[in-house]
Amino acid sequence: MSDVLLRGGLPWGLGSPADLLVRDGLIHEVGPGLDAPGAQVADITGQFVLPGLVEAHCHLDKTLYGGPWVPHSADDTLAGRIGNDLGRRAEVGVPDAGRITALLERMSAAGTTHVRTHTDIDPRVGLRGVEAVREAAARVPVEVRQVAFPQHGVLTNPGTAELLEEALKSGVEAVGGLDPAGIDRDPVRHLDVIFGLAERYGAHVDIHLHDGGTLGGWELELIIERTRALGLGGRVAVSHAYALGQLDEAAQDRLAQGLAEAGVALVTAAVYSFPVPPVKKLRAAGVTLACGHDGIRDLWGPYGSGDMLERAMHLAYRSTFRRDEDIELALEAATTGGARLLGLQGYGLAPGDRADLVVLPCGGAAEAVVVHPARTLVMKDGVVLHN
Amino acid sequence: MSDVLLRGGLPWGLGSPADLLVRDGLIHEVGPGLDAPGAQVADITGQFVLPGLVEAHCHLDKTLYGGPWVPHSADDTLAGRIGNDLGRRAEVGVPDAGRITALLERMSAAGTTHVRTHTDIDPRVGLRGVEAVREAAARVPVEVRQVAFPQHGVLTNPGTAELLEEALKSGVEAVGGLDPAGIDRDPVRHLDVIFGLAERYGAHVDIHLHDGGTLGGWELELIIERTRALGLGGRVAVSHAYALGQLDEAAQDRLAQGLAEAGVALVTAAVYSFPVPPVKKLRAAGVTLACGHDGIRDLWGPYGSGDMLERAMHLAYRSTFRRDEDIELALEAATTGGARLLGLQGYGLAPGDRADLVVLPCGGAAEAVVVHPARTLVMKDGVVLHN
Ligand SMILES: [Zn+2]
Ligand SMILES: [Zn+2]
Repeated sequence: MSDVLLRGGLPWGLGSPADLLVRDGLIHEVGPGLDAPGAQVADITGQFVLPGLVEAHCHLDKTLYGGPWVPHSADDTLAGRIGNDLGRRAEVGVPDAGRITALLERMSAAGTTHVRTHTDIDPRVGLRGVEAVREAAARVPVEVRQVAFPQHGVLTNPGTAELLEEALKSGVEAVGGLDPAGIDRDPVRHLDVIFGLAERYGAHVDIHLHDGGTLGGWELELIIERTRALGLGGRVAVSHAYALGQLDEAAQDRLAQGLAEAGVALVTAAVYSFPVPPVKKLRAAGVTLACGHDGIRDLWGPYGSGDMLERAMHLAYRSTFRRDEDIELALEAATTGGARLLGLQGYGLAPGDRADLVVLPCGGAAEAVVVHPARTLVMKDGVVLHN
Repeated sequence: MSDVLLRGGLPWGLGSPADLLVRDGLIHEVGPGLDAPGAQVADITGQFVLPGLVEAHCHLDKTLYGGPWVPHSADDTLAGRIGNDLGRRAEVGVPDAGRITALLERMSAAGTTHVRTHTDIDPRVGLRGVEAVREAAARVPVEVRQVAFPQHGVLTNPGTAELLEEALKSGVEAVGGLDPAGIDRDPVRHLDVIFGLAERYGAHVDIHLHDGGTLGGWELELIIERTRALGLGGRVAVSHAYALGQLDEAAQDRLAQGLAEAGVALVTAAVYSFPVPPVKKLRAAGVTLACGHDGIRDLWGPYGSGDMLERAMHLAYRSTFRRDEDIELALEAATTGGARLLGLQGYGLAPGDRADLVVLPCGGAAEAVVVHPARTLVMKDGVVLHN
């Protein structure tokens, strides 16, 4: 593998142009006027350089991406959408490794190097989703981690807990949950199962929490308390947490403090018109904040492109961020925040970091988010994938 | 001008593939297997055909489009943003016919054929914005109509009313207003001025209404009453009307009925996290609903691409529309709704209509909105502009 010299780019956070020398899959040197005889040289003068984008919450197993348009048929209720999903899964042929591959290829072309995906686990589908995602992930240079996700309930769906355990035994990295109160109707027992599995298998936890208002706020407290009691800080996340965007400032402050102290991360997708967690407040409190698409072109909804810069735009836009330094917080969620969520080692643009890079034809972070221009170059582990 | 035959497309609403024969700037014939000796032929088999997109609310005069990225400096208050706008206008060099031209060219390439833009009128800028927009509009095959817009108040900004009148005398098609209560502090006198000018010059009216809740709802009532009293139905619009997205269902129903009966149109941009008017309810009541970007890359905010299909996506997305027939309502707002707002004659895909067309590599309305793919072909008055 020959060295690669990226000449004249603007590495994010550095404040001045610099060359990046890539050797053996790592960033070897960063600085002006580097000399590297024999290196493959790419002139990226004046272009912005980011570490690889991190898609922290999606549902690869559900996607219809790459296939023909499927008219959407669900009604507007959550129950209706769950029923629609169950009823039509077989008809439209998901999970399908081919479609997952198509989506991963699109993600990779847009600069995503790491993905965490929630894979449906239930008695009807068994572990077929897990296997389809593995099969697709083996074909595309994107690192994929799965969350064993009880989309149709744990306590309310007998046989699911056993399958979650089987998924973890097979190497799935995290265990998911879903509205412990609103869907599963018994929040304490729900968390008993999920955190019990996490402890037993050394797995991460990432719980979908759509429950709003004071109910969702109280469930966040339960998750914070449980994480502390078990010493699982840094391994637990809550996805969506719409409640955080609905509660008053005092409650937001208290929960932000609790999440930060317990080491519970937040993952947001800023979808539709659902409340977006208070990004600035969470970051100021020190909460790890990551970002993802949620569903992309599936039976739950037709939207989503797979481009994490476009997704960061949605997060910044829904947060009414206009100033460059605010918009940059959305880019952090789509990069360093996701990396912290996943516990990635060697993530960044410093010498010694893994050479997972994206180059963009723009001058800085805010412009990258707002314009999300076509990628000039994508590199994974030192290999130029797209340019 | 030679005939143009578009072969095998899927004209919106027709339900089956058809050829379109274009002659002398008009749609001459629509049907399967048309024969047209000597015509320029474009094979668009299986591609979706729309009438030209209508940008119903933007601010061309403010745009920084096409220039370098300008870091955003305003604080989060409306007063702060107005002050920032006034203070930095000269520094960044707006209005500028070159930048307006760049944005209009982008809009045209994305299939927009008609634009209504709110142009700042105040004693500091005078009519320079109006003139810059006219200069740019003369260069690009997009029909541009202006609203003389008192961005910095009418009653609260002496000299503005006289300049609005001057703008109308010079041929500007509509007169604007701005939060008659929240900004101008005297809603009845504000409407006296605006509607008085509209009557005297036969102009349309389009009032920015950000005032929320019951205050905004009451101002909508004032506008409805005034429109009825003066018999100006079909010539009056309210832009944004965030209040409509905040009031309870009963108030929404009552106002939707009132808007429909009085012939007052609604224009929405679905920006940031601001409330979106209830699209389905308004359409069911028979209210004309149009869509626009609001500001694009300006001192008020950095977002916006000029692509009206992307803007329709935001409207559908913020409305939590998942079903194809719901998403299609957003496309209607970006096409037929805007055409109705502007009172366009010969707008559509029927024989005799003006040949303003967009061709897209997709199969239908919902996909066009969700994916908003690159345009295959754009035609204005029978001339192929982009393909
Ligand atoms: Zn999800
Ligand atoms: Zn506006």
